[in-house]
Amino acid sequence: MTSRIIAVDPFDLVVFGATGDLAYRKLIPALFHRHRDGQIPDVSRIIGCSRRPMTDEAYRKATEDALKKFVPADEREPELVASFLERIFYVAVDATAEKSGWPDLVKVLKEGKDRVRAFYLAVSPDLFGVICEGIGAHGLITPQTRVIIEKPIGKSLESAMALSDTVGKVFKESQIYRIDHYLGKETVQNLMALRFANALFEPLWNAAHIDHVQITVAESVGVESRAGYYDTAGALRDMVQNHILQLLCLVAMEPPSQFEADAMRDEKLKVLRSLKPIVDGMAEQVTVRGQYRAGASAGGPVPGYLEELGRNDSHTETFVSIKAEIENWRWAGVPFYIRTGKRLPSRISEIVVSFKSIPHSIFGASAGSLASNQLVMRLQPDEGVRLWLMIKDPGPGGMRLRHVPLDMSFAQTFKTRSPEAYERLIMDVIRGNATLFMRRDEVEAAWRWIDPILDAWSTSREAPKSYTAGTWGPSAAIALIERDGRTWHEEMI
Amino acid sequence: MTSRIIAVDPFDLVVFGATGDLAYRKLIPALFHRHRDGQIPDVSRIIGCSRRPMTDEAYRKATEDALKKFVPADEREPELVASFLERIFYVAVDATAEKSGWPDLVKVLKEGKDRVRAFYLAVSPDLFGVICEGIGAHGLITPQTRVIIEKPIGKSLESAMALSDTVGKVFKESQIYRIDHYLGKETVQNLMALRFANALFEPLWNAAHIDHVQITVAESVGVESRAGYYDTAGALRDMVQNHILQLLCLVAMEPPSQFEADAMRDEKLKVLRSLKPIVDGMAEQVTVRGQYRAGASAGGPVPGYLEELGRNDSHTETFVSIKAEIENWRWAGVPFYIRTGKRLPSRISEIVVSFKSIPHSIFGASAGSLASNQLVMRLQPDEGVRLWLMIKDPGPGGMRLRHVPLDMSFAQTFKTRSPEAYERLIMDVIRGNATLFMRRDEVEAAWRWIDPILDAWSTSREAPKSYTAGTWGPSAAIALIERDGRTWHEEMI
Repeated sequence: MTSRIIAVDPFDLVVFGATGDLAYRKLIPALFHRHRDGQIPDVSRIIGCSRRPMTDEAYRKATEDALKKFVPADEREPELVASFLERIFYVAVDATAEKSGWPDLVKVLKEGKDRVRAFYLAVSPDLFGVICEGIGAHGLITPQTRVIIEKPIGKSLESAMALSDTVGKVFKESQIYRIDHYLGKETVQNLMALRFANALFEPLWNAAHIDHVQITVAESVGVESRAGYYDTAGALRDMVQNHILQLLCLVAMEPPSQFEADAMRDEKLKVLRSLKPIVDGMAEQVTVRGQYRAGASAGGPVPGYLEELGRNDSHTETFVSIKAEIENWRWAGVPFYIRTGKRLPSRISEIVVSFKSIPHSIFGASAGSLASNQLVMRLQPDEGVRLWLMIKDPGPGGMRLRHVPLDMSFAQTFKTRSPEAYERLIMDVIRGNATLFMRRDEVEAAWRWIDPILDAWSTSREAPKSYTAGTWGPSAAIALIERDGRTWHEEMI
Repeated sequence: MTSRIIAVDPFDLVVFGATGDLAYRKLIPALFHRHRDGQIPDVSRIIGCSRRPMTDEAYRKATEDALKKFVPADEREPELVASFLERIFYVAVDATAEKSGWPDLVKVLKEGKDRVRAFYLAVSPDLFGVICEGIGAHGLITPQTRVIIEKPIGKSLESAMALSDTVGKVFKESQIYRIDHYLGKETVQNLMALRFANALFEPLWNAAHIDHVQITVAESVGVESRAGYYDTAGALRDMVQNHILQLLCLVAMEPPSQFEADAMRDEKLKVLRSLKPIVDGMAEQVTVRGQYRAGASAGGPVPGYLEELGRNDSHTETFVSIKAEIENWRWAGVPFYIRTGKRLPSRISEIVVSFKSIPHSIFGASAGSLASNQLVMRLQPDEGVRLWLMIKDPGPGGMRLRHVPLDMSFAQTFKTRSPEAYERLIMDVIRGNATLFMRRDEVEAAWRWIDPILDAWSTSREAPKSYTAGTWGPSAAIALIERDGRTWHEEMI
């Protein structure tokens, strides 16, 4: 079975930071796949921009190299690579310099003035201001123009507001697409389908039937060469403020009236605003931060965070676990346990919705112990959904029960390649569909909840708890959930 | 994975009708499988009884022939067949004759007087009385003795009561095991596990969330050589009064306090007593009876019922469909559509629980139409459970939804042979576990609902509607559900 491909409108996509890691590793492969599936109309162009002077030819060569590196060989049919490269152009623009190259970009874009136009700012947030100004000053904003920005969107509420102000000077809010690639994942989409296209789950999706929710985003890598940048951020800013809170919103939100940008974002915003503030000394009870020390990963020894950083005075957390609560009718009393960290035992991102136990077992002790139902939505490494149920152990006589996973892995069901998040999201920008992008007020509401935690940590006399690389974080993170009589979900796949 | 086998207590099983079809086709293979799995303790014996004089050796030979015919070759290890045959004995008993052979049976059973003792009456109900009398008169009822009887248990409330009285003269109700092999099926057991070992289904298992239920028991065979007997019964007595009403009870019953014989049967009884009586001319509206005429089956022409019967004045129904209703809080307004018949297109037994549609689609027309969730429990030809859900069609952009079945086929999950219903049920008798057997009051409550339908039909001027062999019954059966805006579930597997 193949899914129907509906071509988007013709577009010019301008990528600032065209020679950077994000462009080569994610954007170009994503665009190639959309080209390969016939979703990109003929005249559409991808225009790379960066400081470095380079010809179209040279950038096409660099693009081809990126495809070789990041797209499997059996998906790189030579004629499709050739036709893709014909879409590629390059303009050197140094937004900070006097001889900026902007007029060259103006000239190139003139040809596509009636197309959808999107600027992808795959650069450091420091440059958002000057690039946006340049775009505005050179008259490059048509009615069909959009701008795409990536995390980090600020380091606090204040800096996030400043950044949105900066971009907002030139672009209207409706033109700004804040990308969170977690929202582009199939499993996240399917969470919406499961909740709102089925009558089975929504009646149970509340405090009467759900015991707790877990959200884990675990990485096995360390910070390595990114230590310098990472030390100014930490796990709470890097993962919780954006990805994890967005996932939490999608699990927790009320049904929107439409699967449409503002209806969805209004509901997510309501969740963020219902998060119980972690203030007045609560941080010590409901948050755990950790920092990895030397240990083992993938069978070999790895250094600790401070060694990678080359300093030993950092209190930056490489792990964080929080017991969050949502203060509304649907979720009162249902903890959302979240955790994320680097140098954990494996790379796993998942949402676990754990239902309450049955009120009474009719089966007696001989049936074995009854585990509660769980819906496990996995985003990484493989995408899929599993529903854990109790069913009868087949056999002649006696009712013995067993906890088994019902596999709802979609790739298997459909026997089709599952698109990468960036593919979906870039096409959504071209379509002008902002459903899966964050609105300014959402970003700010998330910071409003994060800031007091950062404040509490920065005034605390305690350092982050250390954990050995290759383990599931400090033991305090285990205790955080175990003292409530619950356990982190650790499923072997 | 293999399931744990727990041996039963030593027993003597006496099979009356030992040379009949049921014994050879079902009972002996079932017992062999239990022997093969090590569930039958060493001293246990299987003692065949029938009128015909025969030696132990001759009956062992007949038993071996039955195994060859009804057990797959790769499950018939010679040493296991040999050890099974050592359990087999034979006593000629002609219960109706003067020189009855009872003393021989007394002698043989003396050896096992402390074992569990079970009499399986695999004979015509006409003989139940005289056999039970013989058993009683010859002092064969020990404290650990049970008797197993099969359908048909009566042809009406009155005859069922008479039959129970007859058996009840000799056996206490707690010693009588009325077997309905549908209740021994894995899927039926799993229905209990799904409903009562999981928190997910029970909160939805009511009129607020379920639109309707369908129970289909379809056979592709005709009556053929059984026409003479069948003409005195018909589909309503043969299938609905027992199998289908039992399935309906298991779907509809309240949670019993324990998975134990009387707790379960009390709950089933409540359902039977809540069935809306079909009286006062209602039969014409909510029942459809049919009789097949010549048509095609399995690619060849087949005769009609009357031709098989050799008469053309029979109004016996070979098909029946009923819209049943349960008048209690849980099920008010939820129709249970049932249908069963011979010479239908395929052999399928299934229960379909059809949930209500979602109250509002957030996804809009482009997502495609939304089908409602269904739980399909299949008993024949293969056992399994499927949950039909809407999930997202994978693809880059857009939310397109698709109705897909989640497979909960247990044999696959467990990679183990699923036992036949008779295996479980005979072992349950030996264990003294009556959970899956019908109590007298249940049988009578079922007849109390059936009798007025039979009466209405017998006084009706209309004949059963004819249908072509190889079709899904008379068109009136389609109309029965379609005029409520619903459709019979016909899933290709």
